[in-house]
Amino acid sequence: MLLNLERLNARMAADGIDAVIATSPENVTYASGYWALSQWIRRGPQTYVVWPAPGRGAPHIIASASLLDLLADQEVSVSNIAKFGDFVVEIDDRAELCEADSRQRELYGLANDGSAGAALSRVLDRLGLAGGRIAVDEGGLPPSLAAFRLDKPPSIDAVDGFQFFRQVRAVKTPLEVERLRKAASIAEASIEAALAIAAPGVSEEQLALEFNLETLRLGGLPVLYCIGTGARSAMPNVQPASRKLREGDIIRFDVGGRYKHYRADIARIAVLGEPSEKIRSYHHALHVGVQRGIEMLKPGIKAAHIFDAVVETVRRDGIPHYKRTHVGHGIGIDGYDLPDLSPSSTDIIEEGMVLCVETPYYELGFGGLQVEDMVVVRHDGAETLMQSSGALRVIS
Amino acid sequence: MLLNLERLNARMAADGIDAVIATSPENVTYASGYWALSQWIRRGPQTYVVWPAPGRGAPHIIASASLLDLLADQEVSVSNIAKFGDFVVEIDDRAELCEADSRQRELYGLANDGSAGAALSRVLDRLGLAGGRIAVDEGGLPPSLAAFRLDKPPSIDAVDGFQFFRQVRAVKTPLEVERLRKAASIAEASIEAALAIAAPGVSEEQLALEFNLETLRLGGLPVLYCIGTGARSAMPNVQPASRKLREGDIIRFDVGGRYKHYRADIARIAVLGEPSEKIRSYHHALHVGVQRGIEMLKPGIKAAHIFDAVVETVRRDGIPHYKRTHVGHGIGIDGYDLPDLSPSSTDIIEEGMVLCVETPYYELGFGGLQVEDMVVVRHDGAETLMQSSGALRVIS
Repeated sequence: MLLNLERLNARMAADGIDAVIATSPENVTYASGYWALSQWIRRGPQTYVVWPAPGRGAPHIIASASLLDLLADQEVSVSNIAKFGDFVVEIDDRAELCEADSRQRELYGLANDGSAGAALSRVLDRLGLAGGRIAVDEGGLPPSLAAFRLDKPPSIDAVDGFQFFRQVRAVKTPLEVERLRKAASIAEASIEAALAIAAPGVSEEQLALEFNLETLRLGGLPVLYCIGTGARSAMPNVQPASRKLREGDIIRFDVGGRYKHYRADIARIAVLGEPSEKIRSYHHALHVGVQRGIEMLKPGIKAAHIFDAVVETVRRDGIPHYKRTHVGHGIGIDGYDLPDLSPSSTDIIEEGMVLCVETPYYELGFGGLQVEDMVVVRHDGAETLMQSSGALRVIS
Repeated sequence: MLLNLERLNARMAADGIDAVIATSPENVTYASGYWALSQWIRRGPQTYVVWPAPGRGAPHIIASASLLDLLADQEVSVSNIAKFGDFVVEIDDRAELCEADSRQRELYGLANDGSAGAALSRVLDRLGLAGGRIAVDEGGLPPSLAAFRLDKPPSIDAVDGFQFFRQVRAVKTPLEVERLRKAASIAEASIEAALAIAAPGVSEEQLALEFNLETLRLGGLPVLYCIGTGARSAMPNVQPASRKLREGDIIRFDVGGRYKHYRADIARIAVLGEPSEKIRSYHHALHVGVQRGIEMLKPGIKAAHIFDAVVETVRRDGIPHYKRTHVGHGIGIDGYDLPDLSPSSTDIIEEGMVLCVETPYYELGFGGLQVEDMVVVRHDGAETLMQSSGALRVIS
């Protein structure tokens, strides 16, 4: 299961929550395993998961009739389904239906609960959650907010479920760690594929194409591919353009796709030919900073404390004027999960968190340098999810 | 410009709107050309465009400090920028900055307006829009809705801007049509690339990989790749799996990526070896149905009228029991724009609309068949954006 059920239940108990309702695609997939295509590629389509506290009933998915095929074809951990809307699918009565098709037939046969909001109302009613304190993830509610003006609104005491889900998702299950490890390794291999063609005259767009092709070949999907060369590498969110590589150029990768819905976000630096002394010394400081942060990661330590130590290390080791707003963040089904490694963060590191630790440096007119590693926190410290070193790569 | 300014101004005048505020990524990019990475790949990051009615002041972008590099590097049609948040970028004072870097320096030098909401408030104040009737696109507002509880809320009369933008976007500008034509051609070429490897024993996953690799090579990004074979082709949203092609199988493509943010959505059917008589006759009826719909498309015709005619045609030409909830939809920066070719639609076809006309047929135990073409409405009828025929493809 992707869902950390133990943590969900503990937090529901601690906050006196009777049920949570997932509405954003990340939380729907996280809570149930159900990946409802339309809500991932558009804004508007509705899918919900209602997950009651222990003893308050069984979890339910509220699904559009037009997406029940995916429910039948995927590994979904929630078996109670409420359907809304109509969708026409014929059935060949003479054919022997396979398992997924039989399950589809069953799902299409469910009563149509009208709108998404009406179906949700009915589920809440059925579960006796009227008057309950419910964490509603507003992240996926429709633009007009109309769907959540339930047709027959049970009076619920709604609290901010988007943040509640972020808290639960902060500590990963083994299945999530496995996906994140794979996502990281795809990103690393894709950097190698791009660097394999790096030479004078090759454009950022060509590097990015090789990067994304390799991501696809390895089972990933392109999402983040900030790949900048020369002075353009200083652009924090640089999008690959026609600029061509020249001798001495920095190549900055701040990249990561999705693997089975889970994100990667890593950074590596290469230089075409001999790096300048400034590149070498600055990159060294940034690399040591990340290593310092990773060494410090263990259950119980304050995120803000890590921030201070990392910035201090980078300053001492080569960039005296180094400034940052954060030096890392959690990662999971969303690219920015908790915790947040920033000076104002109140987060405490816990076993099972997966983090990106990073020390980007952007200087217009010079270039950008960055090391970013993905790691998982174990009881005795951080285990890296990386296979490559964050050291400066020299392409000769 | 992507934005249909003439239509926006006409609709603002007709509805007595003093300004529109774009908040969802689609509408921000549509209104300004600004593609703010984070809001496209995550839920939460805020970017707004305020576009006043003629005579009410200049349009403004409200942008996060962390994304100003993209504003400097992209072709953006709005030059007034309000910035919120802090972001550290150094400047090499001895370097000669290129144009994009100079623009970045200028943007980083803007005052920090605090939060996105505070920056928006300030812009509305400055434009004298307090008390105004404003179409607020709620599509990109944050989960907690907190950002739109403006720090110093000018009292505005807010109306549903998400729907308002859909109305404006329904009629495409020449630049949008160009991008949609290219997106369609990439999808067609990607189907060819997949069919080039179609043979007994080849899996859906392999077909999808070839499809997506070609999309990338041609400058597109993978989004929709429902590729199903055999009985699995009946799943409306089929996601490519390990099932291997067999002689006589249907291969259904319902596919389309993004090209410069604009979507494709087309469908084609191939059969491996000799198609059964049922496949041939059903597919013929569906194909004739789409052709009928395209022939009827011209300015002034009712969308619901086209729906009736298309369904009637399919029934008469080979599938007497044919039922559908819609036979097409607009397409643009979102995969489902207006108009909606459904029986309850009140939409009227206008010159410049770009539509997908489609007749899917799903039968569990048998398979799925579908023809879907993209077309643009001209003053005298529809011009196709397709280069290939929707006829049944036989792979021998």
